[in-house]
Amino acid sequence: MSIVLGPNRYGKAESRVVRIYRDEARHEIRDINVSTALRGDFAGAHLFGDQSKILPTDSQKQTAYAFAKQKGIVSIEDYGMTLGTHLVDTVEHIDSARVEIEEFAWQRVLVDGSEHDHTWIRKGQETRTAAITVTGRGEHRETTVIAGFKDLVMLKSTGSEFTGFYQDPYTVLEPTNDRIMATSLVAQWRFVGAPSSWESAYTAVKQVLVSTFATVHSLALQQTLYEMGRAVLEEFDSIVEIRFSAPNKHHFLYNLAPFGIENNNEVFNADDRPYGLIQATVLRDDVAPAPAEAWDSYTGLV
Amino acid sequence: MSIVLGPNRYGKAESRVVRIYRDEARHEIRDINVSTALRGDFAGAHLFGDQSKILPTDSQKQTAYAFAKQKGIVSIEDYGMTLGTHLVDTVEHIDSARVEIEEFAWQRVLVDGSEHDHTWIRKGQETRTAAITVTGRGEHRETTVIAGFKDLVMLKSTGSEFTGFYQDPYTVLEPTNDRIMATSLVAQWRFVGAPSSWESAYTAVKQVLVSTFATVHSLALQQTLYEMGRAVLEEFDSIVEIRFSAPNKHHFLYNLAPFGIENNNEVFNADDRPYGLIQATVLRDDVAPAPAEAWDSYTGLV
Amino acid sequence: MSIVLGPNRYGKAESRVVRIYRDEARHEIRDINVSTALRGDFAGAHLFGDQSKILPTDSQKQTAYAFAKQKGIVSIEDYGMTLGTHLVDTVEHIDSARVEIEEFAWQRVLVDGSEHDHTWIRKGQETRTAAITVTGRGEHRETTVIAGFKDLVMLKSTGSEFTGFYQDPYTVLEPTNDRIMATSLVAQWRFVGAPSSWESAYTAVKQVLVSTFATVHSLALQQTLYEMGRAVLEEFDSIVEIRFSAPNKHHFLYNLAPFGIENNNEVFNADDRPYGLIQATVLRDDVAPAPAEAWDSYTGLV
Amino acid sequence: MSIVLGPNRYGKAESRVVRIYRDEARHEIRDINVSTALRGDFAGAHLFGDQSKILPTDSQKQTAYAFAKQKGIVSIEDYGMTLGTHLVDTVEHIDSARVEIEEFAWQRVLVDGSEHDHTWIRKGQETRTAAITVTGRGEHRETTVIAGFKDLVMLKSTGSEFTGFYQDPYTVLEPTNDRIMATSLVAQWRFVGAPSSWESAYTAVKQVLVSTFATVHSLALQQTLYEMGRAVLEEFDSIVEIRFSAPNKHHFLYNLAPFGIENNNEVFNADDRPYGLIQATVLRDDVAPAPAEAWDSYTGLV
Repeated sequence: MSIVLGPNRYGKAESRVVRIYRDEARHEIRDINVSTALRGDFAGAHLFGDQSKILPTDSQKQTAYAFAKQKGIVSIEDYGMTLGTHLVDTVEHIDSARVEIEEFAWQRVLVDGSEHDHTWIRKGQETRTAAITVTGRGEHRETTVIAGFKDLVMLKSTGSEFTGFYQDPYTVLEPTNDRIMATSLVAQWRFVGAPSSWESAYTAVKQVLVSTFATVHSLALQQTLYEMGRAVLEEFDSIVEIRFSAPNKHHFLYNLAPFGIENNNEVFNADDRPYGLIQATVLRDDVAPAPAEAWDSYTGLV
Repeated sequence: MSIVLGPNRYGKAESRVVRIYRDEARHEIRDINVSTALRGDFAGAHLFGDQSKILPTDSQKQTAYAFAKQKGIVSIEDYGMTLGTHLVDTVEHIDSARVEIEEFAWQRVLVDGSEHDHTWIRKGQETRTAAITVTGRGEHRETTVIAGFKDLVMLKSTGSEFTGFYQDPYTVLEPTNDRIMATSLVAQWRFVGAPSSWESAYTAVKQVLVSTFATVHSLALQQTLYEMGRAVLEEFDSIVEIRFSAPNKHHFLYNLAPFGIENNNEVFNADDRPYGLIQATVLRDDVAPAPAEAWDSYTGLV
Repeated sequence: MSIVLGPNRYGKAESRVVRIYRDEARHEIRDINVSTALRGDFAGAHLFGDQSKILPTDSQKQTAYAFAKQKGIVSIEDYGMTLGTHLVDTVEHIDSARVEIEEFAWQRVLVDGSEHDHTWIRKGQETRTAAITVTGRGEHRETTVIAGFKDLVMLKSTGSEFTGFYQDPYTVLEPTNDRIMATSLVAQWRFVGAPSSWESAYTAVKQVLVSTFATVHSLALQQTLYEMGRAVLEEFDSIVEIRFSAPNKHHFLYNLAPFGIENNNEVFNADDRPYGLIQATVLRDDVAPAPAEAWDSYTGLV
Repeated sequence: MSIVLGPNRYGKAESRVVRIYRDEARHEIRDINVSTALRGDFAGAHLFGDQSKILPTDSQKQTAYAFAKQKGIVSIEDYGMTLGTHLVDTVEHIDSARVEIEEFAWQRVLVDGSEHDHTWIRKGQETRTAAITVTGRGEHRETTVIAGFKDLVMLKSTGSEFTGFYQDPYTVLEPTNDRIMATSLVAQWRFVGAPSSWESAYTAVKQVLVSTFATVHSLALQQTLYEMGRAVLEEFDSIVEIRFSAPNKHHFLYNLAPFGIENNNEVFNADDRPYGLIQATVLRDDVAPAPAEAWDSYTGLV
């Protein structure tokens, strides 16, 4: 028996890169948070403190900023692929690079009804995300693009039931035919091939998710998620898999009976904790899975 | 010399009240965070543990939820005045009540281009606020309404200078004629009298603030804030005072020179800490000040 | 009637200064978060964008770091007085400076039972604070020192009642003779004159507060706070005033009756929101109040 | 080609259970945050909204609170195994249960030098964690116990180098022979078999980690982590694997040269973002891996 080094990776997390396009009077802005994580032959660093194969995390950061100018940030998916490919191609003992990006959206300020050239308000709604993983070299090169968002808070004030559930001795929950359903959705969808435009693909996928959430009469958050995923896969050929994490943000009907007030699903307490958490994947059954690291966020363990 | 009780107050903070209007197919939603704070003759509780004059914070919470149905939440300013007045009027040893409200805005989901009846996405931009203070009784009754918002993140990519500043031996900052100016604005404005509509007043004040931020060529964040305040006071007769807290969210030009890349105000690092912090008041010089407690948030010390 | 500039201030918030003393093998560490706020004649900057009287916030930051070496950080109170005095003394149009400091405590790592020379774990308990305000010049110079802490989380599992309270129509709370009492305490105490050691004063005041919280049989959180304040003022002559902000962190007895399980104050749900909030001041009745700005944190409005 | 349901799970996250032992005058406290996640045959809920196999997340919460009394919380590992085993054993279509627990530590208040019977201060240092996964039935039953902590903030003011690293065209970092090394460590270690005491095992593992961090002269954070892992595996036979996630919390030497002040590794800026992030596993080479879900936190995607 001996003690050995297992899976490992390292990188620079959360470089806050802001790119302004100002070649014309009407500026454009891209505001992102970039994290890179590298895997490869780093045993020397762990076992002997030998850094000769360690590209400093500082260099990864410098590259992220430099590429914002050299390569530009038209879409976070393109920028991430360029950055990830560069990292694997220029350092030979790197086996794979994962670039994780959050994008903060801005909308132009209106002045007298017209969009201002160089002033924005941060939109503040969901945070768009991308995770690009580049593995292997030459003919073994594989690039995985996962687009998505987090913190999209949605609520419907009716059209949601929860009945007929399994009952064990600790079940005291009453079934309901009409409740608030609310979540702060995380969704990530994997592409095989690139859409004609990453920007319009993002907008379109979000719209399908949101409108399906609205229109499905929900018998369970599980069902709603599955329908949302199915709708995306049916509409977008290049998307092969979508994963959801959906906290059930409980809105409890407030008990106004002690005050002789009827509460017909009108007044709720929005509770913080605990919350239900539903997580599911919807995918095509004929598509090869992505490399394992393509789904491994730097925010978890390796 | 003796030890005595000084200023004190108590209340229930952060009741998360959600009110759905569902009398018609097209529902409406109001989503607020309510905090109440009472001042009055509570020495008995402090000195002897005598609770006979203490209206429990739980009762304050119950009232906040009950009023959401009984009185409704058309605007947070009206709801706050109703709740604050009730508290002072029904408990005789209460001298003043302050009701602080945050409102979270929702926008309707679009389905096939039409607004959905009962599904929303949380807007996520600024948080609207109101602070209503009711003091005194009978002819001494005074009601102060302060409307506002927090966390309105704005950025302009040009049109901002910082030059000609005072220099001491620790000054190494270079003057600049072109920089990013960004802030996460807190603004609170005090009314004397009520506007015809709290809702349209809010929208209009926000628009004046935002468009002034955009159009003023800034020599200093101080100057921009003053102009924003002046514009509001010039446009709205019923507003007599406005206070700002504006962090200067530094965007530092990233040094790409080591890589032979020119950076002509195009790539920035959005820094977290430290940040400049500019705070100012703009007011009419002929208006009586509000009672001191009208500006004292429960988030500070009494 | 005209529109005018009202109260205003500006400064640099949250400089994260770490000072290592390493003249001997056994190092020492001071880890602080410094914020400065200046008041004075800054109307030119607001009205005309004239910066000639504006000491840049960057210069304030540089001074905070430079003084960490030049003057050292033996105690945050001393460091804050030195920094605040310097700012008022070297820039003539500054009327007052407020230096607000958070200190993060570290404890030495033990290796084979001995304290390590240069390795620490962050303690993570309460955050010690100081707020030093320097106003005026020459004979009008006044220096106010407020020491304190925030986020000291305390809990007692018995010895706390809440009965005999005022009842209005919205009161449904049941009185209780035995409940959990828990808070996350903010306390700030003002000195007149300096103690022989700021370090030992801090430790001693905290001990008085904590042990009084433990030993007072509580009829109300108000009463407990008053007794805590009185104990401090009785023990420390140089302290003239203490202010508390104490959220009542509710621990609700969990209803296990549906499962036939008795719950004799043994299982609780620690709730997040809403929470009661009790705020009070205890002071000596013969002491002049501090200047108003001495209590105004940069985290509020001016 | 068809669209299918992929991996999925659901549960109740973040039940805040507080358990008081009060059979004697000297009370004991256990303060935990419990999350359960179930996997199994839930296709009906996703595909058809059929809840008949869905044990409500509310029931999972009720059980977490009920077990705090019925089974007690002596150690979070035992409590988690009991809860996880119960969930799999009582609901036949559940294949596996994962119970994730955070424990908040309290220390007794001292009064006149003696520990108080029923009053505590929250320690606030690291948060202890446990993740128990129960899979299969009968002879296929497997129970995995992963103990650990998060947010253990450590710093050493010397004894850390970073030199000899790989250089690409974007490398501008200067090598250093003496820097601050600081991290906020996440560590999770997997047991095969149970130690004689979970409590003393936790304390002992933490001590090995902390003292190794202190005493290893570090050529790289990678090397330090590996040595920390090796030390744990060498000392504890029942631990077979340990995983680390270690942000490199950068402390940048502050440039005081413009002020003619020498800064001999004495004054630093503690930066927030970006940060290096090192993640590694150290394990025994002869031990079977845990089931995949044993390492999948509910905080990530399924």
